[in-house]
Parts: sequence; C-alpha cells; structure tokens
Amino acid sequence: MSKVIQLEKKNNDFSTSVDKLLKLSKKEIDDINILILKKLDSKIPLIKEIANHIILSGGKRLRPLLTVTCSKLVGYGFKKNETNHIGLAAAVEFIHTATLMHDDVVDESKMRRGKLSSNEIWGNKTSVLVGDFLFSKAFDLISNQESSEILKLLSDTSIEISEGEILELLNDKDPTINEDTYFKVINGKTASLFSAATQVGGMAANISKSKQEGLKAFGTNFGIAFQLIDDALDYSSSAKKLGKNVGDDFKEGKITLPIILAYLRSNTEEKKFWKRTIKNLNQKKEDLSRSIELINKYNCIEDTMKRASHFLDIAEDSLGLFENNEYKIALLELIENSQKRIN
Amino acid sequence: MSKVIQLEKKNNDFSTSVDKLLKLSKKEIDDINILILKKLDSKIPLIKEIANHIILSGGKRLRPLLTVTCSKLVGYGFKKNETNHIGLAAAVEFIHTATLMHDDVVDESKMRRGKLSSNEIWGNKTSVLVGDFLFSKAFDLISNQESSEILKLLSDTSIEISEGEILELLNDKDPTINEDTYFKVINGKTASLFSAATQVGGMAANISKSKQEGLKAFGTNFGIAFQLIDDALDYSSSAKKLGKNVGDDFKEGKITLPIILAYLRSNTEEKKFWKRTIKNLNQKKEDLSRSIELINKYNCIEDTMKRASHFLDIAEDSLGLFENNEYKIALLELIENSQKRIN
Repeated sequence: MSKVIQLEKKNNDFSTSVDKLLKLSKKEIDDINILILKKLDSKIPLIKEIANHIILSGGKRLRPLLTVTCSKLVGYGFKKNETNHIGLAAAVEFIHTATLMHDDVVDESKMRRGKLSSNEIWGNKTSVLVGDFLFSKAFDLISNQESSEILKLLSDTSIEISEGEILELLNDKDPTINEDTYFKVINGKTASLFSAATQVGGMAANISKSKQEGLKAFGTNFGIAFQLIDDALDYSSSAKKLGKNVGDDFKEGKITLPIILAYLRSNTEEKKFWKRTIKNLNQKKEDLSRSIELINKYNCIEDTMKRASHFLDIAEDSLGLFENNEYKIALLELIENSQKRIN
Repeated sequence: MSKVIQLEKKNNDFSTSVDKLLKLSKKEIDDINILILKKLDSKIPLIKEIANHIILSGGKRLRPLLTVTCSKLVGYGFKKNETNHIGLAAAVEFIHTATLMHDDVVDESKMRRGKLSSNEIWGNKTSVLVGDFLFSKAFDLISNQESSEILKLLSDTSIEISEGEILELLNDKDPTINEDTYFKVINGKTASLFSAATQVGGMAANISKSKQEGLKAFGTNFGIAFQLIDDALDYSSSAKKLGKNVGDDFKEGKITLPIILAYLRSNTEEKKFWKRTIKNLNQKKEDLSRSIELINKYNCIEDTMKRASHFLDIAEDSLGLFENNEYKIALLELIENSQKRIN
C-alpha cells in the first residue's frame, strides 16, 4: 500500500503546477467560464441544467488552460482586442465535454469526476442529445473566428476523436491487442484534443507554421503521456483523488497499457485469468487484488510510466522553439511534475 | 382500406416530383455522391462500412437536392468554378445522417428506410460514435467555405436540432402535450435542417439578404409540412412505402399530431385508452386498429393534413421572390404534389 500513498502525494505536485497555470491566466479562465455559461443558455431548462452539471462539475479545465497559456506563451492576449483565444478555449472545452457525455454512454459509466455521471442521472438518450448540443455549440463558437484553418483543425480533431473511440470499442475487452493499436486509440481519443488545444492557442496569435508545429508536438506528446499516466493511476491512486473507484478500468474490462503489458508478460495460467476477468468479464471479489498483484509482478505500472516519460521528454523539447518566459517555465514545470507523478 | 391505397398512389406523385428535381440536377447529385464517398473514407474499415450502410442505403437525398436546386434557382452552379453548393449539400446530408443515427439510438428503432437500423446491426455504442464521426465530417466540409456565416448557420441549425429532439424526449409518450409544443419539436428536429438546406443553396451564390430570407421561409415551411405529412402517413401508408411498419409511431408511443388531436378530441373513456396505450405503452394486439378508428372518428389525419397545407401555402408564396425558371417550376410542383399527397 505504500506505493499508493506515495503516488497520491506526487499527484499533488501535478495539481500545484496546474494551479500555477491557473493563477497565471486567472482572468482568461474567468472569461472562459463566463462565456461557457452564456453559451449554455438554452430555451430548454433541462439542457441548461445538464450542461451546467457536466461542464461546471469541477473539471480542471486543463485543455482550455493549455490554449490560453500557449497564446500567452507566444505573446498574444495582452492587448484589449486580443480575445480570440477565449472563444477557442471554450470551444475546446465544449468538444471535450461533449465527448465525455458520449463516452459515458459508450462506457456505461456510473461516475464522472466523483459525481454521478449524466447518463446515470438523466439516462443515455438525453446524454446523447445534450452531447450533440454541446458539440454544436463548439462549432458555433468557432464561427466567430476568421480563420478557416482553425475550423479545419477542430473538425479534423473531432473526426480523430471518434475514430479513436471507435477503434477502442472495436477492441473492447480484448487484452491481446498490441501496444501499437493502443497508441492509435489514445492518440485519437485523448492526444488529438490536447494537440488541438495547444495549436489553436498559437493560431489565435497567427504564429509561424513551424511554431504551430512546435505547439502541436507539445500538445500531442503531453496528451499521450497524460492518458498513459491516467491509465496507470487507475491501478494505484485512490478513488477520491480521481473521482472514480480504484480499479474502475479493471471492473469495466477496459484495455489500457498496464493490462496489455501484463497480458503479454503473463504465463499460460495467468493469461487464463486475464481472459476470464477481462475478456469474459467474469470477475470475483478477489480478482482486483490479483490483477494488481500480476501488474506489479511484471512491473507494468513502472513500464507504463516509462513510456509516458518518453513522450514527456519529447513534449519538453518541443517547447525549445519558444523564448523563456513565465508561461514556458510554468509549462515545463507541468511536464516535470507529470514526470514526478510517475517516478 | 380504400383510403390507404389512395394515399399510396398520391404518394407516387410526390416521388415523381422528387425524381424531376433529381433529373434537373443529376450531375450535381452525382458530384455530391462522389464527394460523400470520398469523405467517408476512414482508416478504420468499420466506420466506412457503417457510414456506407446508412448514407448509401437508399435515402432520397431530399435535403441536398433542395440545396443544389436553390442554388440553381438563383443562377448559381452553371459555371465550372461554381461548386460551393456541392460541398454544402454534402454537409447537410452528413448532418442529417448523423442525426438519424443518434435518433435511432434514442428511439430504439429497429428499422430505417426498410433496412435494419445501424443500432440494430452494430449496437448503440457504435451508432453514437459513428454519428459523431459523420457530424464532424459535416463541419470538415464546411471548413472549405470562405463564409463564416455559413458555419454559423449550420452550427446554429445543429443546436436547434438537438434542442428539438431533447424537447421531444422530455415529452416522451405524453399524449396531453399541446400542439404548440409539438410545433416547437418539429421546427427543431426537422424544419431547421430543411431551412438550412435551402438557405445555404442561396448563400453559396451570395444572394441578397431578402432572397436568403425567402429561401429560409420556403425551407422552414416546407420542412414543417414534410414532417406533418410523414406523421400522418404513419397511420395510413403501407410499411413498404415508407420503409417502416404501419403504426410504428403508435407502437413506440411516439407523440405526433394525429395522436395529439385524437387525445384532445377523445371522451373520458377514449382518453383512458390513449393513456394506457401511449403513456404506459401497455398495448394489446387489437389496439393499433382501435387507435386508427379513433383517429379517423375525429378526422385527425385530415386535420393534420390541413395544418400541413397551411405551411405548404406559405412555402409556395415565399418562392414569389424568385424569377420563373425550370427550378422554380419544379419546386412549385413538389409543393403541389405534397398538397395532393395529403388531400
């Protein structure tokens, strides 16, 4: 159990870095929140209620925070008329939230961020439709922007997200998939939106193509690492911390890297255990402990974290194009504390 | 039974009008189909398969057909470089198809256009995600357009569609809702996309604001009538004709105008029948016949059609702004044959 406690403490360093970013862009986040509330207004009270529930239920706004931080990193957002990044950050958050609502339907989740998920309260049908509503609102926000490149990027991103999620669904409960397929899945479902979030921050500022590519590389690699760490934490952190129960992924038969590695490294008898518990979802009370035992036996958390570390290194280097300022320092700290979180 | 047969025959006049529109814009529809196929290409074979199933399964392409017809009505699309309407028409069809996929999940439909619905074949989860994929593809298509007004219109339209569908879900199986609520529902879920389809046809051609409004009025009113007629036909036409079973709406407890009127006009004992069959969905074998009996007793089909006729009249007049050409004549014929379909 000592490992669990240690991870939790380190997780706090990560939260501190996020808080630092929040502090640097407090005004922008306030503006984003005001804009989000305004856009959630609907003729239909239930939509407002649900959208408020999900979008205001304590998400850390990491993606929009990255958008405004990247804008400010390149010197945009300090003049009064420089407000493009606010709308774009809100659009990114809307896409993220729409995705979460549809995800919860697809995953049949009961909890989200420590609260009942919207599909649990209002049912799957409503979640599908309110997700569509939020998704449309994202594109409505983009329509204020002049650049058709931004629209192209965000619609391409949405396509990638669906593709990643469909690929995940196609390999549902199959512990024998290879790492390559897993990376395709998380590239689509997670990294693509991080990548778009950081890129649009730069695009609002009309920076050069090569700097745009720099922000893209930062977002993509940070996003992959973020998902890897999230997947590792599911087998080590406490439910309260993540707003979900320990071993949620295991109980759902969700295929993440710790499971993929554990399966690949297991002996014949252990492989049978994975097939029964993950593939057939035939689980007994003691199976979660057994799964964590096997995952630890084969160092699967450490190695998942090693993979994450690789992507964080790339994310760090991709910021090399940008001049040193407080935003860059805060982003580097975020990366470093993600590293710590997984050491 | 004679009424049923008569409606079917008249339904053919409507099909003939659609065929005439198709003939006038054969090249454009071919181009739209080629573009749709190209855009359906995905790294993931299943997406291609499903998207092909739903988007190529014999829909009549009425909405994109209205888009290109409206473009040509105002003189656009005859020069080689005038191709904006093709992409917009495809975008409209993608939004329509995405909506259908999510609808089928929400309605738990088993059939769509005479074939098994996608949720029936591939499951709800896949249908939610492939719907998202198609929706994103629509916005991807719009990103080629220069006008941010078009993006604004189509994202607003998507918002209205979700709002209409959520409002419908909120009043699910409640035969006591009033006509006003019903019109809000069909305005959102059906008329808004017809309205956008006709409007973007004009916007591609950069026509004046007042002509845009004319096309909007045409689309909106034609769309409302289209839905009213569809709802009426469900109690009168054959399953084969509509690609669904007679009385599908009744069996699902779906609230449409024939039911709303029948409930309002029913006596206390009959009102109990509606509550049992629609609200509680407690249906016996003979209940469908009884429902049709009551609907006919109170002239609910005729009166639903009367309402439709009102909107078709407005649709017809709104074309008064445009000069007489073969496209206008074909649209007027479509309206007229919609009238006939319901007389």
